[in-house]
Amino acid sequence: MQNFVLHLPTKILFGKDTIANIGPETAAFGKKVLLVYGSGSIKQNTIYDQVTDSLASAGLTVIEHPGVKSNPVLSHVREGIKLAKEHGVEAVVAVGGGSVIDCAKAICAGAMVDHDVWLFFKGKKGVKAKLPLTCVLTLAAAGSEMNGGMVITNEETKHKFGTGNQLLKPEVSILDPTATFTVPANYTAYGAVDVIAHILEFYFTTTDPATPVQDRFMEGLVINTIESCRQVLAQPDDYQARADLMWCSTLALNGLTAAGLGLVGFPMHMIEHSLSALYDVPHGAGLSVVMPAWMSWRAAAAPAKFAQFARRVFNVNQRDDSKAAQQGITHLTNWFRDVGSPVTLTELAIPESAIPKIAANALALAKIWRLKEYDPEIIASILSTCS
Amino acid sequence: MQNFVLHLPTKILFGKDTIANIGPETAAFGKKVLLVYGSGSIKQNTIYDQVTDSLASAGLTVIEHPGVKSNPVLSHVREGIKLAKEHGVEAVVAVGGGSVIDCAKAICAGAMVDHDVWLFFKGKKGVKAKLPLTCVLTLAAAGSEMNGGMVITNEETKHKFGTGNQLLKPEVSILDPTATFTVPANYTAYGAVDVIAHILEFYFTTTDPATPVQDRFMEGLVINTIESCRQVLAQPDDYQARADLMWCSTLALNGLTAAGLGLVGFPMHMIEHSLSALYDVPHGAGLSVVMPAWMSWRAAAAPAKFAQFARRVFNVNQRDDSKAAQQGITHLTNWFRDVGSPVTLTELAIPESAIPKIAANALALAKIWRLKEYDPEIIASILSTCS
Repeated sequence: MQNFVLHLPTKILFGKDTIANIGPETAAFGKKVLLVYGSGSIKQNTIYDQVTDSLASAGLTVIEHPGVKSNPVLSHVREGIKLAKEHGVEAVVAVGGGSVIDCAKAICAGAMVDHDVWLFFKGKKGVKAKLPLTCVLTLAAAGSEMNGGMVITNEETKHKFGTGNQLLKPEVSILDPTATFTVPANYTAYGAVDVIAHILEFYFTTTDPATPVQDRFMEGLVINTIESCRQVLAQPDDYQARADLMWCSTLALNGLTAAGLGLVGFPMHMIEHSLSALYDVPHGAGLSVVMPAWMSWRAAAAPAKFAQFARRVFNVNQRDDSKAAQQGITHLTNWFRDVGSPVTLTELAIPESAIPKIAANALALAKIWRLKEYDPEIIASILSTCS
Repeated sequence: MQNFVLHLPTKILFGKDTIANIGPETAAFGKKVLLVYGSGSIKQNTIYDQVTDSLASAGLTVIEHPGVKSNPVLSHVREGIKLAKEHGVEAVVAVGGGSVIDCAKAICAGAMVDHDVWLFFKGKKGVKAKLPLTCVLTLAAAGSEMNGGMVITNEETKHKFGTGNQLLKPEVSILDPTATFTVPANYTAYGAVDVIAHILEFYFTTTDPATPVQDRFMEGLVINTIESCRQVLAQPDDYQARADLMWCSTLALNGLTAAGLGLVGFPMHMIEHSLSALYDVPHGAGLSVVMPAWMSWRAAAAPAKFAQFARRVFNVNQRDDSKAAQQGITHLTNWFRDVGSPVTLTELAIPESAIPKIAANALALAKIWRLKEYDPEIIASILSTCS
């Protein structure tokens, strides 16, 4: 285990009928707030009403900033920052999934500075302050509700960049599993794929050979993500399964899984971000294509950890590490197929001829994230196995 | 999964060479601090020097309050409160294990009120404010470094009572595994027993039948506690094993294991507290006596969860739940024996004739903790199986 600092200041309110707390919880930070949300699905169920009723009851003045897209874009973040500054809002309320929360985080940070918000993502400026942020989560996927990460796409340069800072952790996040009952099957599955990707990025890229406590925690989360997603797809309003999936998504990326692992990389996300940036595919759908390819490439060089994964998560009974590793990857790939998440570029309508362009795009993020071992040839060779 | 609120504000600094941060971290809260520690073992290794050097370098004035005993006593807490008030300290620094940190928490809360501190433990008063608290942990056991619980023994009434409050969570805790290298074998084992007891109290007393995410997390922690303790006893300065054991101890009782379980009880601790209060036995040594007895009693009525535990933690291959449950309890009991922790009252020099007195003492805590199903007869019948 490596040294670490762990600070989880986000207060979590989890469970049924908790959304009504958003008003009082937010009122602790100010009187005027920016309400950030997406394309309006929260108006089709009752979540928008629950949130605005609670904010109004708490005496808050609300300025709305709707229209966050999946793969949230920089121009929309800039509009939100302008709005926040114009109205002098004292806090931001995000109602949505990771895209909405990430957009809200970028607004929270951007509202405190005079320079362009994209400089945070290029690593040219560091976040030193932010507006307080409260969240109501509506999708089990990104884990943004309890961490300091944010991912934004610059639609001009076609770059999807992520960055993180301790300060960006939300002050309060409300996790009501019933808010995810109406998430469609495909996005439920993409969310579960994202959760598993977060865990496996850590699990397979740690440079520390001995992290048994974290390993078992992560293996348990993968098993539960797989099982709860399967239950949810069979019965979308299964409260217990929605709750399990939601809590797995938060635990997967709130700092606990990575604490003690030392330097970890996010190579599967690095490659997927280029698929999303260039072809606007759903993040989870891109990940289920990239993951088996990356895992096979990595397992060829270092099969032991992949074998452990196969044995503990999929009960693979195979003594040979390389064979066990590959069987585990096959199990996971089959599960992606079972839940309807694509496993080839073809299914994403991305031609094989696009691979060099994707690899070149990915390299920009590889440099910022310091994933030094990845050059365009390696990225292209990984992608060629999933075309 | 049940509704829950989870707030983990304690900042954790984990790893080698982290103790030197205690000065700067504490200086954020004030200039004059009370330093609470135990019987002086921290002077035999270098921890006392590391802490006082760091506090002095950060410009802090230090008032010392040494002498905390294992099973910390109320009179010593009262002395600490008097000292804190007299000197007007602005923060408390605890250097030790759970006993020291619990004593420090009671001082932090008691220093803010005019009434006697014991009223918090009797449930007559609630904690509304406390002095800031920073900790340097020297024993993997209690988990007090990241939670809001505290346990104190009233040596006049012979009651060992525990209470908890969100506010009592330390602001900062420093966990350096090297600080535990010199913990003797028996106290290392008692600590590991305590960690497992914390996990199993939750695991076996939850009223929610479906908590698969939490279950796998807890099963992983038990496996790692068992394995790392075994390694540490074979080689006391095995850094990785000490680190694993230390991190398990914190994770076992920081709120994560219990989040979502609903109402849980602490019946094994309830009974053990009477052994400690009446016979001053080490807490972990008392627990390894009580646990197999309580588990067998409980498993007889509800074997399913015990069977799951046996299968997943000890790889018991037995289809019948009752038989599997008993085999799991036998495995755990044997492990207690292996690491030198007692499993009978006789080993603690407690005669069978004392059982009625112990049961009567335990009843006082059963009432405060609202463990309604436990009357003196049931407690006595459980204890009779471990005499």
